[in-house]
Amino acid sequence: MAKEITSRAQDYSQWYNDIVLKAGLADYSAVRGCMVIKPYGFALWERMRDTLDKMFKDTGHVNAYFPLFIPKSFFSREASHVEGFAKECAVVTHYRLKNDPESGEVVVDPEAKLEEELIVRPTSETIIWDTYKSWVQSYRDLPILLNQWANVVRWEMRTRLFLRTAEFLWQEGHTAHATKQEAIYEAELMLNVYADFAENFMAVPVIKGVKTESERFAGAEETYCIEALMQDGKALQSGTSHFLGQNFAKAFDVKFSDKNNNLDYVWATSWGVSTRLIGALVMAHSDDDGLILPPKIAPLQVVIVPIYKGNDQLSLISEKANQIVKELKALGISVKYDDSDNARPGWKFAEYEMKGVPVRIAIGARDLANNIVEIARRDTKEKKSIDINGISNYIQQLLEEIQINIYNKAKAYRDEHTTEANTWDEFVKLLDEKGGFISAHWDGTAETEEKIKEITKATIRCIPLNNKQENGKCILTGNPSKQRVLFARAY
Amino acid sequence: MAKEITSRAQDYSQWYNDIVLKAGLADYSAVRGCMVIKPYGFALWERMRDTLDKMFKDTGHVNAYFPLFIPKSFFSREASHVEGFAKECAVVTHYRLKNDPESGEVVVDPEAKLEEELIVRPTSETIIWDTYKSWVQSYRDLPILLNQWANVVRWEMRTRLFLRTAEFLWQEGHTAHATKQEAIYEAELMLNVYADFAENFMAVPVIKGVKTESERFAGAEETYCIEALMQDGKALQSGTSHFLGQNFAKAFDVKFSDKNNNLDYVWATSWGVSTRLIGALVMAHSDDDGLILPPKIAPLQVVIVPIYKGNDQLSLISEKANQIVKELKALGISVKYDDSDNARPGWKFAEYEMKGVPVRIAIGARDLANNIVEIARRDTKEKKSIDINGISNYIQQLLEEIQINIYNKAKAYRDEHTTEANTWDEFVKLLDEKGGFISAHWDGTAETEEKIKEITKATIRCIPLNNKQENGKCILTGNPSKQRVLFARAY
Repeated sequence: MAKEITSRAQDYSQWYNDIVLKAGLADYSAVRGCMVIKPYGFALWERMRDTLDKMFKDTGHVNAYFPLFIPKSFFSREASHVEGFAKECAVVTHYRLKNDPESGEVVVDPEAKLEEELIVRPTSETIIWDTYKSWVQSYRDLPILLNQWANVVRWEMRTRLFLRTAEFLWQEGHTAHATKQEAIYEAELMLNVYADFAENFMAVPVIKGVKTESERFAGAEETYCIEALMQDGKALQSGTSHFLGQNFAKAFDVKFSDKNNNLDYVWATSWGVSTRLIGALVMAHSDDDGLILPPKIAPLQVVIVPIYKGNDQLSLISEKANQIVKELKALGISVKYDDSDNARPGWKFAEYEMKGVPVRIAIGARDLANNIVEIARRDTKEKKSIDINGISNYIQQLLEEIQINIYNKAKAYRDEHTTEANTWDEFVKLLDEKGGFISAHWDGTAETEEKIKEITKATIRCIPLNNKQENGKCILTGNPSKQRVLFARAY
Repeated sequence: MAKEITSRAQDYSQWYNDIVLKAGLADYSAVRGCMVIKPYGFALWERMRDTLDKMFKDTGHVNAYFPLFIPKSFFSREASHVEGFAKECAVVTHYRLKNDPESGEVVVDPEAKLEEELIVRPTSETIIWDTYKSWVQSYRDLPILLNQWANVVRWEMRTRLFLRTAEFLWQEGHTAHATKQEAIYEAELMLNVYADFAENFMAVPVIKGVKTESERFAGAEETYCIEALMQDGKALQSGTSHFLGQNFAKAFDVKFSDKNNNLDYVWATSWGVSTRLIGALVMAHSDDDGLILPPKIAPLQVVIVPIYKGNDQLSLISEKANQIVKELKALGISVKYDDSDNARPGWKFAEYEMKGVPVRIAIGARDLANNIVEIARRDTKEKKSIDINGISNYIQQLLEEIQINIYNKAKAYRDEHTTEANTWDEFVKLLDEKGGFISAHWDGTAETEEKIKEITKATIRCIPLNNKQENGKCILTGNPSKQRVLFARAY
């Protein structure tokens, strides 16, 4: 099985696709750009979703659900918003099919044309703010702290499983506030929730920052983001949180009266992460044998594989295995005892390595006689013989160690691949030969940013929060600069 | 607040809408036929979804996700399926908007027309069976036991919040099996899961049965259903489970080789319940003061309201209230202490009655001195003074009692409104004057079924499982009949 994966060195992009397909995370579908999320991939998404959902609720948010369709005219209300999304949206124009009497085929019924076309939501600011108009009158109705788990559609021309698909699953938070400060606080709070989730659950270190004006969300006054680094030295934007000012409140006329009865527009944020995070997870940790998953979000944390000849050996091993299963479950550890007889142990080992199960326990008949089992950890591929007594506590600690080790490894790679460049030649050379984040001075203009992108395909990933202020010269133009920003080629 | 609801006697339909809107379950949206599910309604859906999801997983199912869009040609593959859904589907024809230079408006870009139109899924059999084709080769790949939580769209002309909306949320199970018996077993298993959920969680008694041929799902060989009765004597189909035979396997060419290497088509089931269940819940239990929710799925089971003058009294009450909150939470009971000072106790009482919170605890200063609190149950509106010692156990038992009482009340109503009719006149009179399920003989033909529907608007809700066989005469035609079936007017 493992043989079937392309290695990272050979073709990183193919390696990624191989893992997604062969670990059973996702599959291509008959619909251009849309994927099928397979059971194992969906179980992973459920772990991520449930963890995030709890974090959202712990910070005072509640879930709701808004329509999939958005009237076309809503998009035009916020000028930069329509500019940002108009070019990539699926448009519903009719509401009925019929049998064509001539061809005998099923065709779109021309008489069932909608008066106004509906857009399949690429994001829901417009339909939500249209709704908030009827929910908000006074400061007593604020804040509104809503989140929605939903599917959205952006008609991407070049798609890749999880990383860029026409339809994807995500959550989108949409909050409404009485003051600017409160909205900014909210946008920053959710950025921190995302960073916490990425680092402490996905084991992916991230840089928190803000986007430059040209990379901002369409309709935002400030876009906060977390940026992660993949093993090929390319960056991946892993979550964004937007301070929207009063733009959508103005576009949809959402005003509130404050304690002194003064009318003002409401302040807004929105924030989202998507199934794209699964792509980040795969690319940040996995190796040439398959997926590597951090224990905290692995759908299955431990697998037990029996190694036996004949039913007598199997039943002795099974007795011990079931006892271990029981002990691990009591500790809240997810575990599967795979005694299926349709595959040999070696095949099973490779299969669970492919799927990134953090810990494998192999139990052989001779081991059993010695009261030991063999434990293999997926991250380092180390194997150890361990006494069965106290095994569940050992594994609990091992899972914690693996979680930390995966994070530390990704962090070491990220730190190693974050480099300062002080001249244009150095900048280009770093991009081509080393990759990673490049910290460099930039003159602050959109023109320079665009030019650097044209020449090198590198973009400004973010201006890190609490960025050190220092005088320098723009790597491209030599014009004065007050701070370094982080460049990278990105997904 | 309570005054604002229309009573059931006055206008049942308006009463329903009033509750849905005023209890904060849902709201109308700017998109025709689509609703906004508000936070309280969504919290209720989350409780229902999580309970069902666990039941599905406990019976061996896993979740996955398939594309929102279905190529138009897929629908034509299964003849009765396209017949059933073609007339009510949203069709995506374009994938881009643009600015019209003449009008300055945003318009659909005529150059971005899809080669083949995409249908927004009304149900996913076709796209899923197209996928299964590449997943199934041998009996070792079977069974496939998948479920999907998703939004679907059926372009209904007359919509009602939750009961019939253009877009709704649901789950759809899609399973593939090696044998006919196994598929039938699965369809029946899931019917039983639905009945268990309806009766033991929603407290809604249901009749399990099969649909007549004309009421079957488009593409099914047998449609199992659970039917519930609402307080106005109308029936509501609350869940269906379909044995699909080999119809979709044939339409999408999904074959497997069995142990003897013989090729055969795969056997299928599909089964689903939707946000419509929330409509059933509202209509089955609620009264003229608002929602009544069974404790097992109520988002909030207990609310505590302080009755006080001045901060000294409040702080004494709060101390006791917080202790009760802690005790209840330790028992897994959801509870809120509402000490907000923006509303009087009477307003809060009415508000939580409207929202159907099963138990209310009121704590006054004088009560506190006597170490008692006032407990009001939502279902019967009874109030009792209860000693604070041991209160959490008392409430735990009370919640169980309320759950049972709500079910028993609905069951008594259903039993009382299930009547045998032996003549046509009796049948019509029962329908017009009493409503409910009418058990009557039918000659088994689609013509008679259709005629009865035309004349009375009553449909055959189901042929109950394990139905008693008895000779009789069809109420309409007088032709011989072997069994009674259940008629009702329905939502």
